[in-house]
Amino acid sequence: MIQMIDINSFGLLGGDRRQAALADALARDGCTVRVWGLDGLPLDPKVKQCALDELLNNSAVVILPLPATADGRTLNAPYAPQPLVLDDAFAERLQFKEVYGGRMAAVYATSGKWRLIDASDYYTREEFAVRNAGVTAEGAIAVAVREYEGSLLGSKCLVAGYGRIGRALSRLLRALGADVTVSARRPRDLAWIELDACRAVPTASIGAGREPYDLVFNTIPAMIFPRRVLAQLKPGCVLIDLASKPGGVDFEAAKELGVHAVQALSLPGKTAPRAAAEIIRDTIYNMMEE
Amino acid sequence: MIQMIDINSFGLLGGDRRQAALADALARDGCTVRVWGLDGLPLDPKVKQCALDELLNNSAVVILPLPATADGRTLNAPYAPQPLVLDDAFAERLQFKEVYGGRMAAVYATSGKWRLIDASDYYTREEFAVRNAGVTAEGAIAVAVREYEGSLLGSKCLVAGYGRIGRALSRLLRALGADVTVSARRPRDLAWIELDACRAVPTASIGAGREPYDLVFNTIPAMIFPRRVLAQLKPGCVLIDLASKPGGVDFEAAKELGVHAVQALSLPGKTAPRAAAEIIRDTIYNMMEE
Amino acid sequence: MIQMIDINSFGLLGGDRRQAALADALARDGCTVRVWGLDGLPLDPKVKQCALDELLNNSAVVILPLPATADGRTLNAPYAPQPLVLDDAFAERLQFKEVYGGRMAAVYATSGKWRLIDASDYYTREEFAVRNAGVTAEGAIAVAVREYEGSLLGSKCLVAGYGRIGRALSRLLRALGADVTVSARRPRDLAWIELDACRAVPTASIGAGREPYDLVFNTIPAMIFPRRVLAQLKPGCVLIDLASKPGGVDFEAAKELGVHAVQALSLPGKTAPRAAAEIIRDTIYNMMEE
Amino acid sequence: MIQMIDINSFGLLGGDRRQAALADALARDGCTVRVWGLDGLPLDPKVKQCALDELLNNSAVVILPLPATADGRTLNAPYAPQPLVLDDAFAERLQFKEVYGGRMAAVYATSGKWRLIDASDYYTREEFAVRNAGVTAEGAIAVAVREYEGSLLGSKCLVAGYGRIGRALSRLLRALGADVTVSARRPRDLAWIELDACRAVPTASIGAGREPYDLVFNTIPAMIFPRRVLAQLKPGCVLIDLASKPGGVDFEAAKELGVHAVQALSLPGKTAPRAAAEIIRDTIYNMMEE
Repeated sequence: MIQMIDINSFGLLGGDRRQAALADALARDGCTVRVWGLDGLPLDPKVKQCALDELLNNSAVVILPLPATADGRTLNAPYAPQPLVLDDAFAERLQFKEVYGGRMAAVYATSGKWRLIDASDYYTREEFAVRNAGVTAEGAIAVAVREYEGSLLGSKCLVAGYGRIGRALSRLLRALGADVTVSARRPRDLAWIELDACRAVPTASIGAGREPYDLVFNTIPAMIFPRRVLAQLKPGCVLIDLASKPGGVDFEAAKELGVHAVQALSLPGKTAPRAAAEIIRDTIYNMMEE
Repeated sequence: MIQMIDINSFGLLGGDRRQAALADALARDGCTVRVWGLDGLPLDPKVKQCALDELLNNSAVVILPLPATADGRTLNAPYAPQPLVLDDAFAERLQFKEVYGGRMAAVYATSGKWRLIDASDYYTREEFAVRNAGVTAEGAIAVAVREYEGSLLGSKCLVAGYGRIGRALSRLLRALGADVTVSARRPRDLAWIELDACRAVPTASIGAGREPYDLVFNTIPAMIFPRRVLAQLKPGCVLIDLASKPGGVDFEAAKELGVHAVQALSLPGKTAPRAAAEIIRDTIYNMMEE
Repeated sequence: MIQMIDINSFGLLGGDRRQAALADALARDGCTVRVWGLDGLPLDPKVKQCALDELLNNSAVVILPLPATADGRTLNAPYAPQPLVLDDAFAERLQFKEVYGGRMAAVYATSGKWRLIDASDYYTREEFAVRNAGVTAEGAIAVAVREYEGSLLGSKCLVAGYGRIGRALSRLLRALGADVTVSARRPRDLAWIELDACRAVPTASIGAGREPYDLVFNTIPAMIFPRRVLAQLKPGCVLIDLASKPGGVDFEAAKELGVHAVQALSLPGKTAPRAAAEIIRDTIYNMMEE
Repeated sequence: MIQMIDINSFGLLGGDRRQAALADALARDGCTVRVWGLDGLPLDPKVKQCALDELLNNSAVVILPLPATADGRTLNAPYAPQPLVLDDAFAERLQFKEVYGGRMAAVYATSGKWRLIDASDYYTREEFAVRNAGVTAEGAIAVAVREYEGSLLGSKCLVAGYGRIGRALSRLLRALGADVTVSARRPRDLAWIELDACRAVPTASIGAGREPYDLVFNTIPAMIFPRRVLAQLKPGCVLIDLASKPGGVDFEAAKELGVHAVQALSLPGKTAPRAAAEIIRDTIYNMMEE
């Protein structure tokens, strides 16, 4: 018997609210969408919840969540009825399909059969990272308003790092009327920071003397704020760590020194699932076209 | 015996975290500060918690909270050990002092003796209202980021009303990259809205046809969003009501129509008590100088 | 014989490039447009240049330039073949027409017959003034870039006065990355200036000490920059006077003190005639509707 | 005899107002500055104008202009009393000095002896290019205000190219309230453009259909605007070419098609010589430190 599959049929496995929002966005675009492992989450009526077998039998494109796996052994699927083990058998079922997922390296390591699968990682795409940074920066603004008891307008802010999030965030802060300093290492980045109408300082100089900031945002995935540096911040300073785990702040020392340090994780997946989903969708569309 | 009072001695009665932050701000400026009725709230060590008598005997300036009374009968003092009744006896004790408070009309009505007191209302001052609007607008941004599942960047926003909050908020939204429409009645305000690089529409035209907005902010204290208008918003639209009670939204109808309506009260007192307190302090300083 | 006039027929008298641009804008909107006194200026082919009599016989609406008269005796019509004297005879010919013009008081003074004419002054309309301020502010930016040898980004700017032009200009300067201080008198305006993320100073304090500004913009029609104040500016400072004549700067003293003072007149009529014309058109449309 | 040279002694050869401003800036920083070839330009009294020999004998650091040579044979020195030929003899005199200049490749080609000289090109430095782009963008704004008869606020602008100048310029235009579209080729740049709150289009799509822009800025050094594309712009459109010669516009065709095309050359050297000079100075300081 010949298996007929609609080439615009998407099957989404696992994930959380962001993956659910992705299903909705694809369905709104007119695609056929099947999902497995999003039990209990609200979904567009056009999205079809179904069994794993049915999904795999009928989907030309399979989309795994971000991250695709948290433990390196099972799919990241907190809303699934049971764990989905990433093994040879699972990989085999994905052959002859297009597979997209986020942070796929740990998935590829689960079976040699992945070498034969047409699989791609949307997380490694620049346009994904840039747009994600924009939404993350918005989330950081909301965290800052909530955690800081003063007004962003006129506040003294430090953004450590001028990568994508640093760039997006420093402009938003400046746009909201904050007095913004940004740290970077390269002379070229220091020049761009000045063009953003922010003050530029070398990252290495952070903590060399008393730091007058009301709010500090860390975007660098390295220990930029050890005890020695935290001791230079003023008491009552709010420090928001946006770097992925293990982060760049000695939280224990912060507590002792009266610095109010906050780890802002899961931005933007949790705070803006729809925006995060649309970014994944557009990135996958770009990859499908190439 | 002659009662000697330091003319820079402030006595703060009642209030909440904002009043506590005001005590701290005055103390940091070097003033002598006594408080009553802030039991259990963290305070700067220089602020002296004391009995009502001691406070009244030693303070040249007495500051009441905002609002000074909620019930028209007792001081607004949720953290006080017992209610402070606003009567002739209380008013008498304030004679020969400078008294400042917020929304004082209801206090003045409690006793004829208030006519003899040097009392002023900081809430009626324009500079208070303007700066408060700025902090309220920041709080509204944080509410929007939290409640809206998409990204503010590129979102279609409507701000109903171009009073102080409307003005402050529309600029912040535009600065964050939203596509902003603002409503007003007067041609002059429509012109200013365009100068803020926003689209201007007459307030009366809201709801005349389908409204394409992702986010709607109401700042007008009137029923601008009855069922008829809500029915023109797109399902999933987030509506944030910033007008003081009773507000400008038919919340029941909103629920039925799938509009996610949120009443954002207590901005900025709750979300930015320090900023709110500094605004009160600066306004009182201005009034004392005049 | 009955005179039949198209009620959408506009007759434009005198003026310069702005008036010509106004004729074009009206013609593009589908109106019948006749002009007199714009000889030699490029005009849309749909605009009909004609003799004074023909224009007056056939136009239901007559539009005079801004200012309508420069000398109080003749129409402001530098491109006209001969002067048009503002006398009883001229006024008589405008009866039963709608007349619009800019700065009409001096015209009204030329003949008692103006009391009977349905004449209005678009220059006194708030929405005209606000939008004009926006275009004037853009022109001031261009003057600043041309006259100042440094970069606006990071420059220290003072805007004297927070009227319409001060407001529009200070936001543009801030948007371009300048470090902006604005002066005003009222506490409420000082609060708005801070909400615009600029520094606020009382106007009276200008010149009280050394002033560190690279660029100073005066918008106040009063002698704000006499010799005493100019002496406090740093040598090489560029001072741009946007106040209408006689302006607010002692230009002679400026020269002696090494302050590079520039009188920026005719903004926006000369630098942005099309924008200026569209503002007049929209204002007249508003007035016709009311 | 031992030649003693102050190691902070700068000798500047040739150039124009920017080089003169560089001399002033170095002198204000406390350096010893000698210049040759700036006859007739105003200079700070601390700058010493001297003969070529005296300059070369006494300067540890020699700074050539930007570009260092225009004809590949003589120094770019329009204000010099006579041409300075770039030959072996000249190169020999620079040995054992630090030499900095702009666009040095053509100078290096004049003599094999340059291989032995400690010479560097500030023009190739990223931080120079970035900051220069900022000042160029400001100059472009001033050109736009001057050439366009409408208002930038609300105007439809296209910026072709998202290199340094495109990036700096698109943000300024957006900050001034324009409706900005930017073209780029890479998905990552398109994502950044959207984060700048501008509309992103692929560069290849320019001219594929009618283009609704009031203002077009070209920053790409390639023929992006041939006749075919110009024919898609609306008549009266203002096109400002910021690309260095030969530029990216068919100026002849533009004329025929009613597109007002302007070649904006010598930004920022001519319009902001002081800013341009400070950028060169800071870049040279960075290079001396490394």
